[in-house]
Amino acid sequence: MLKDATETGFDVAIIGSGIAGSLTGCILARQGLSVLLIDTGVHPRFSLGESTIGETSYMLKVLAARYDVPEIAYCSTLEGLQKHVTSSCGVKRNFGFVYHHEHERQNPQEVTQCNVSDFPFGPEMHLYRQDIDEYLFNTALKYGATARQRTSIKQIEMTEKQAILHTEGGETFTAQYLVDASGERSLLANMFQLREQPPRFKTHSRALFTHMEGVKPFDSCTEPSGQPTLWDSGTLHHIFDGGWMWVIPFNNHADSTNPLCSVGLNLDERRFPKPTDKMPQQEWDEFLARFPGIADQFTEAHTTRPWISTERTQFSSRQTVGDRWALMSHAAGAIDALFSRGLANTTQVINSFVAILLEAFGDGDFSAQRFAYIEKMNQTALDFNDGLVHGSYIAFRDFDLWRAWSKVWFLAWNLGSSRISGTYFRYQETHDPTIFNVFEEAAFPGSFSPDLPQFQTLFNDLVALIEEVEAGTRTPQQAVTAISETFRQASFAPTPLNLADVLRQYHDGSTEAMRRMYEWGKNASPQELRRYYEYDFTTLEVLAQKATSSV
Amino acid sequence: MLKDATETGFDVAIIGSGIAGSLTGCILARQGLSVLLIDTGVHPRFSLGESTIGETSYMLKVLAARYDVPEIAYCSTLEGLQKHVTSSCGVKRNFGFVYHHEHERQNPQEVTQCNVSDFPFGPEMHLYRQDIDEYLFNTALKYGATARQRTSIKQIEMTEKQAILHTEGGETFTAQYLVDASGERSLLANMFQLREQPPRFKTHSRALFTHMEGVKPFDSCTEPSGQPTLWDSGTLHHIFDGGWMWVIPFNNHADSTNPLCSVGLNLDERRFPKPTDKMPQQEWDEFLARFPGIADQFTEAHTTRPWISTERTQFSSRQTVGDRWALMSHAAGAIDALFSRGLANTTQVINSFVAILLEAFGDGDFSAQRFAYIEKMNQTALDFNDGLVHGSYIAFRDFDLWRAWSKVWFLAWNLGSSRISGTYFRYQETHDPTIFNVFEEAAFPGSFSPDLPQFQTLFNDLVALIEEVEAGTRTPQQAVTAISETFRQASFAPTPLNLADVLRQYHDGSTEAMRRMYEWGKNASPQELRRYYEYDFTTLEVLAQKATSSV
Repeated sequence: MLKDATETGFDVAIIGSGIAGSLTGCILARQGLSVLLIDTGVHPRFSLGESTIGETSYMLKVLAARYDVPEIAYCSTLEGLQKHVTSSCGVKRNFGFVYHHEHERQNPQEVTQCNVSDFPFGPEMHLYRQDIDEYLFNTALKYGATARQRTSIKQIEMTEKQAILHTEGGETFTAQYLVDASGERSLLANMFQLREQPPRFKTHSRALFTHMEGVKPFDSCTEPSGQPTLWDSGTLHHIFDGGWMWVIPFNNHADSTNPLCSVGLNLDERRFPKPTDKMPQQEWDEFLARFPGIADQFTEAHTTRPWISTERTQFSSRQTVGDRWALMSHAAGAIDALFSRGLANTTQVINSFVAILLEAFGDGDFSAQRFAYIEKMNQTALDFNDGLVHGSYIAFRDFDLWRAWSKVWFLAWNLGSSRISGTYFRYQETHDPTIFNVFEEAAFPGSFSPDLPQFQTLFNDLVALIEEVEAGTRTPQQAVTAISETFRQASFAPTPLNLADVLRQYHDGSTEAMRRMYEWGKNASPQELRRYYEYDFTTLEVLAQKATSSV
Repeated sequence: MLKDATETGFDVAIIGSGIAGSLTGCILARQGLSVLLIDTGVHPRFSLGESTIGETSYMLKVLAARYDVPEIAYCSTLEGLQKHVTSSCGVKRNFGFVYHHEHERQNPQEVTQCNVSDFPFGPEMHLYRQDIDEYLFNTALKYGATARQRTSIKQIEMTEKQAILHTEGGETFTAQYLVDASGERSLLANMFQLREQPPRFKTHSRALFTHMEGVKPFDSCTEPSGQPTLWDSGTLHHIFDGGWMWVIPFNNHADSTNPLCSVGLNLDERRFPKPTDKMPQQEWDEFLARFPGIADQFTEAHTTRPWISTERTQFSSRQTVGDRWALMSHAAGAIDALFSRGLANTTQVINSFVAILLEAFGDGDFSAQRFAYIEKMNQTALDFNDGLVHGSYIAFRDFDLWRAWSKVWFLAWNLGSSRISGTYFRYQETHDPTIFNVFEEAAFPGSFSPDLPQFQTLFNDLVALIEEVEAGTRTPQQAVTAISETFRQASFAPTPLNLADVLRQYHDGSTEAMRRMYEWGKNASPQELRRYYEYDFTTLEVLAQKATSSV
């Protein structure tokens, strides 16, 4: 590691001290680089990205183990959060989807749910981001990062040898490498005119969100339909033709001190353009009036923060890395909050970016080419997410079509999670750090299943197939049949998931289902996946137990 | 209660949703008034006022009991906070003062400490205000208050019948009564030109503060000197000729998840004017270089937020209530953070203000005259605080003088706390709400001991006496003797406090000492104080136990 930083010279300058900047800062500082974190704002502050998925929580464990930052692991479990970080987070024991028809009572049978068992993939968490982000920011400083909060950058010069940052306050900083971990209004994207106009993505959605108090558990507003877990114990999605809504309670377990619930409405902005003549609260009230089955949950609810009403949330970049600079995932682009993939992408990009950057500091080569893997990962992660989300918006027009399409998500979730958890557990067993190199050696970085050629084809076929429904060249019912048939022919797909049974409503995330997945993985999975299932499930249980008790 | 609010018409509009506005909002909404809370900002956010004293924590209990808002009581104990609010607060088991000479090692014998026993006056708390304020704000909304955050007021019209608020965003609200619960930049103070220029106070201080991580417990930087409790278990004050510093750890008990410590430096701005040529960090570094006994504690510390460096912190108002409007304490004026009296004043003003306002809503008389008691309380509380703090800055020149002057604080703390706790426990015993009327019937509202004529004379005499040291007409040693003699002649003063022994270093806040205070109070105190000691200590222990278990 080079440590020749002068008083204002750093190895790495990071723009943005949110979760991406602070995670990157934690790790780089812990690894011995001199790090500057610059932000126009200050903690604490609200942020979205509240619901974790297996790829996020296991990637947090990977980051902690690979780069020796235990504080990141504390943020990967509810117990760790409660003990070390905050009492304000909720628990996520399911991904719940409840289907609604306009002006009709909700039919309790029109629901899907995937439970998340306690082991190995859960429970997941509802992160109260103001606390998490502040904690990780403080952790970065603890490991020696220098901070400049409430600091605006006036000008950035990129030379062959360094990045030079001039602040509005008159300070000048240099850095050998510049990371933009901000978001849509990325300075680097603006400076290098990186944004694609319009964004290339097929998803067209806008969002309207806030925190609320007094949101009733959906379980008290409906009949139980035999779903594996209570709706209120997880992330609830109300879905309907043209959009969806998230309901993310922070108050859904006995040890939480947080009475709030995150609520966000996402609408196809082509069908429901952002109104120019009404305030967000009015749009919300009118929305609830259209969906009585949703409104029940909100009869006693009120906002505790101002609504945020966005324009189209998608944005994309033609390029995300350059000589001596890179955009982290959320500065590179965004799709939609559906399936909570934002943080999954962020953590995965950070994981591989840091590995490559640390090597770059070994030999002083910071060329864009060296970071080509990150470029691909950034772009592909967004494109895959776009395909999955766009397909979902198409599927929202028909409950059967949604049921079928949700199997695409279920497959992606399983393959994506077990790849990261499998690598993590192999490391726990062997303590061989080269095991983590798998994350920089994938054939299809950014894909939900980055190792498997067959998956890419399958996914693209499925996306093409559902887009025919949007084009009107296939009916939803025809698409359901075709999706089922496509899965049936995908001989590489995990047989325990039984994907061809596309109308099944409950996706089994139980420990027993995971055990069957591991048996398949060890004995019957494609060769590219075997490394993620190299030990038997009992060993995994022991390793998980060890990891938990070390929190 | 009048409830004729139209869509934009409220009974009460409150400017500022910090702790004062949110507490007032909680209570008024709970009491059935329609309340609007307006703030230019949004939660969460940093705030000072982190260390509680008996008058604060017992007044929070009074507010909760008197106005039926249990959430306020949760904020009055560490257990309540942990269970209902946040895991981020620290514990305060003492008021510790450590005396420093410039460029010298600290002499471990030059210290004073007042321990705060678990019962009846402790432990007190180090409030992580961003969490407390957000919780109380959310509680106000839960009870029905309407909020407008990120809302700036463009214009206020006060008519005979109402206050009319025009926002920058184009909304108009009316209210029968307008409360300004903001701070130094109060809109009403500006509109009515209420500020005294220069402020009338004798204290001249400025402040420099932030949060830090890595602050070492002072116990690891010094020799134990026989003080009752560890320095790190309470609020530590480093004192020196010309100023003082607070050290308020949030991480000083096993259940805290907060690694931070609040640090603030307060300097006589006449002797140490705010530098125009250096950044706060540089001033801080240079300060530590002057005081090696303080610097030890900070060798591994770093800031986690930007420094805030203020101008002179004192401000005052010629008037604090008017027809249909009132300023809460921190909008009316401020002295200095010494002795943590800001929140004590805020809660006491709210307590009496709300009682009078609720009566005013009974008959529709909102004249300034009706709130004359609040005017007096606002002004007197600031003037008494000014006397105590100004005397302390004078005393900081000499350790013996500080020891003697600290007895003035010790007396004020005892009388002030037992008045509020005594009233609270009487109510717990009888459930007779008229007991609380004592807070609006004092002869000297705003005084540390508002019932006792003798106290006012004593306090004024002591202030006059120490000011002679500043004037140079008395040496510190002469003042020490005179303070002792003055206490000796104050026959009304609690004998268990043994105030005339002015050089005693350890102020006894133990349960046993409190038991002796209650015996004195019951049998030997001035008639005006008897009502605060009407039961025996055993009853009080039972009542306290009952109150604790109800959290």
